[in-house]
Amino acid sequence: MKILITSGGTSEAIDRVRSITNHATGHLGKIVAETFLKAGHQVTLVTTKTAVKPSPTSGLVIHEITNVDSLKTCLEELVPQHQVLIHSMAVSDYTPVYMTGLEEAEQAEHLSDLLTRSNTETKISSKDDYQVLFLKKTPKVISLVKDWNPAIQLIGFKLLVDVSKDQLFAVARQSLDKNKADYIVANDLLEIGPNYHHAYLVSKDDAVLAKTKEEIAELILTSVQKGE
Amino acid sequence: MKILITSGGTSEAIDRVRSITNHATGHLGKIVAETFLKAGHQVTLVTTKTAVKPSPTSGLVIHEITNVDSLKTCLEELVPQHQVLIHSMAVSDYTPVYMTGLEEAEQAEHLSDLLTRSNTETKISSKDDYQVLFLKKTPKVISLVKDWNPAIQLIGFKLLVDVSKDQLFAVARQSLDKNKADYIVANDLLEIGPNYHHAYLVSKDDAVLAKTKEEIAELILTSVQKGE
Repeated sequence: MKILITSGGTSEAIDRVRSITNHATGHLGKIVAETFLKAGHQVTLVTTKTAVKPSPTSGLVIHEITNVDSLKTCLEELVPQHQVLIHSMAVSDYTPVYMTGLEEAEQAEHLSDLLTRSNTETKISSKDDYQVLFLKKTPKVISLVKDWNPAIQLIGFKLLVDVSKDQLFAVARQSLDKNKADYIVANDLLEIGPNYHHAYLVSKDDAVLAKTKEEIAELILTSVQKGE
Repeated sequence: MKILITSGGTSEAIDRVRSITNHATGHLGKIVAETFLKAGHQVTLVTTKTAVKPSPTSGLVIHEITNVDSLKTCLEELVPQHQVLIHSMAVSDYTPVYMTGLEEAEQAEHLSDLLTRSNTETKISSKDDYQVLFLKKTPKVISLVKDWNPAIQLIGFKLLVDVSKDQLFAVARQSLDKNKADYIVANDLLEIGPNYHHAYLVSKDDAVLAKTKEEIAELILTSVQKGE
């Protein structure tokens, strides 16, 4: 099969020297890619410059993206060419609109007026003691995937922090519905350590636990091959 | 000599999954470290997890830091033990204080009231269409170096974007004065490419141009050994 995998985390630029980054090493995506390659599938990996990547090998193509916008453009082209998307990338929820000193923000009659401004300087001045950064929501790329290719098997990811298993499953099932995903890999940051990574592969009626990145990859492989 | 070098860029956490990062690959710091090691000096490199680093070798000790706070703690201990500090790290100017939806920010009588709040959630909710992030200035670590060790030779760095040579020199000389630095390596992001890196080693009365990272490293080595 032709498998599309995303890994790493997007970064949204504040100016030319600073950005807001979603932490993600790319380790899980790398292991998932290696697992599918070993099983004889063709893998396209969409990732970032700083993410760890599999070694070059036949059957593997790598694309590098930076921010949500470049991710969207890249996936819009690639999704129709693949049968499966495993979307493990940590995607920025918000992107910077305007940054200014606290004083300017306080002088605005309505804060929302500032949303129409933009920084013209290439490196925002660092004179003010306090600054205010306005951010807007990014497009939810995962929600567009089934529009681009209704037949693709979609495996989404949901990372929460310090929630109950019930909450984790509830959020995962919401995501299943909203994005027409086939599976959501649901995990809690507190259950990820150097040698373990607890995650549930959540489908409409089921939730299967995996305890390491390797187990998560095997679980996704088995489920994807079953759904073929 | 015992040489302390910083490289890479600091990151300031917004929450457990997002942070504001200063872009810096660590390449220049790596080359500077290698140049001093080759000349027989002992090198302590303070850097970040994602920065590129020299290969392990005798005479080289590496410390990893994350944010400005951890950088400050680390340098406060190391600066008194070294004769030279080459501070090429890109250090965050601001650190997040509080992030909230635009609505809450609009309801505050004074925006500055929000500066006393802090996020208790570990992953800030992404429901609002717009968010407002309040940031405060970080301590200027470079300004503390000569208090910690008045005898240390201090080489600071100044990266600007798209400025004239006069502006670049003026800002570099301000930094020389304010931080009691011996040299400032002044460079403009627009003059840094894959195979070139234009920078001036600015002292009180002089400004010497180097055109590659290797030339910058050699120039610093010569100047530091002269100032011994």
